[in-house]
Amino acid sequence: MGEVKELDEGRILAAVDHTLLRPTATWEEIRQICDDGVAYGCASVCIPPSHVRQAAEYLAGKLPVCTVIGFPNGYATTAVKALEAQDAIANGASEIDMVVNLGWVKDGRWSDVLAELRAVKAACGEHILKVIVETCQLTQEEKVKLCELVTESGADFIKTSTGFSSGGATAEDVALLRAHVGAQVQVKAAGGIASLEDAQTFLDLGAARLGTSRIVALVKG
Amino acid sequence: MGEVKELDEGRILAAVDHTLLRPTATWEEIRQICDDGVAYGCASVCIPPSHVRQAAEYLAGKLPVCTVIGFPNGYATTAVKALEAQDAIANGASEIDMVVNLGWVKDGRWSDVLAELRAVKAACGEHILKVIVETCQLTQEEKVKLCELVTESGADFIKTSTGFSSGGATAEDVALLRAHVGAQVQVKAAGGIASLEDAQTFLDLGAARLGTSRIVALVKG
Repeated sequence: MGEVKELDEGRILAAVDHTLLRPTATWEEIRQICDDGVAYGCASVCIPPSHVRQAAEYLAGKLPVCTVIGFPNGYATTAVKALEAQDAIANGASEIDMVVNLGWVKDGRWSDVLAELRAVKAACGEHILKVIVETCQLTQEEKVKLCELVTESGADFIKTSTGFSSGGATAEDVALLRAHVGAQVQVKAAGGIASLEDAQTFLDLGAARLGTSRIVALVKG
Repeated sequence: MGEVKELDEGRILAAVDHTLLRPTATWEEIRQICDDGVAYGCASVCIPPSHVRQAAEYLAGKLPVCTVIGFPNGYATTAVKALEAQDAIANGASEIDMVVNLGWVKDGRWSDVLAELRAVKAACGEHILKVIVETCQLTQEEKVKLCELVTESGADFIKTSTGFSSGGATAEDVALLRAHVGAQVQVKAAGGIASLEDAQTFLDLGAARLGTSRIVALVKG
């Protein structure tokens, strides 16, 4: 009995960015995500940019709206990513999840990566910026370097995954990111979170947010 | 013997948008795409937005640069898609492949879809706009409706697929798009084109462009 992990559903749900990013998602599906996000006490809803304005009006402040930019491939230009962030905030988003430029990472263009993070953070102002590093595409050295740059940029979160690549969050990566970012940077685990046990594990390893649609579905039964 | 299709490599290569859109693509890989696109007489290179400026400078007019916007999920806002097109053209792109908003398609928001196509076409000016409709996600009725809207918008091409969804170009879809768009709209087949025979089939069915990296690789041997 002592080996069975005590699951705190309320704590888990409070960390969830309740997420629907499928390209074909309709407004009815997004509205359901908004209703469930409120009903189950989630941290936010994470939805496509083109649904942000309608969702923000519908939620009317009951729950923060999170959206994605440079998503999921990360290779929009810095100018476009900054404009995307401004556009999303103007439409009512208060949290921005951006994807790092992975080609620049592979080319070791670290000063360009950092300049881009700073530009997008400036565009976000007081709003929350989460930087998706797509861990499944990175070496250990690249993960550590990105922890340093995300910390230096003033971004609020580092996030493991888009959910559109070859892999999602792992316990090892969540622990690694938590160990290498600064104390003021929080960790978001995302991609493939399939059970309350996984969710609890990520929280116990230091994640502050969970990007998933399945946790609410599981709790709903 | 008479049943073996005569393959015209030169005609096939001249229709190819030589493509590399992997998120982790490095400059050396993009440079190789540029070199091969020139050497094999392709129509263009199709590369990520953040590589456009360097590739355009490198190519110095020897080959058109094509890039992607609202890609691959299609749910950037109209304002952002128009800005992405302007930004790409300012960086040296002369062809823009954009993804239609698939959530709006599923919601039947046809006037919004058309307004977006017109806004992006206006941003493109005299430059080529190709509209990716992601056929693998569409019903037959939606495919036909999008053929009408793409024609009405003044866009230059309709394109089957992003290569990032559940399926690519099929012979049936290429024929369907060709049959339902106006005479001034060309068809681009993309996604999963794996052989010269497939390429020839798509051209014979009325495609004017082929989005692929494999054709050049096959011809190189």
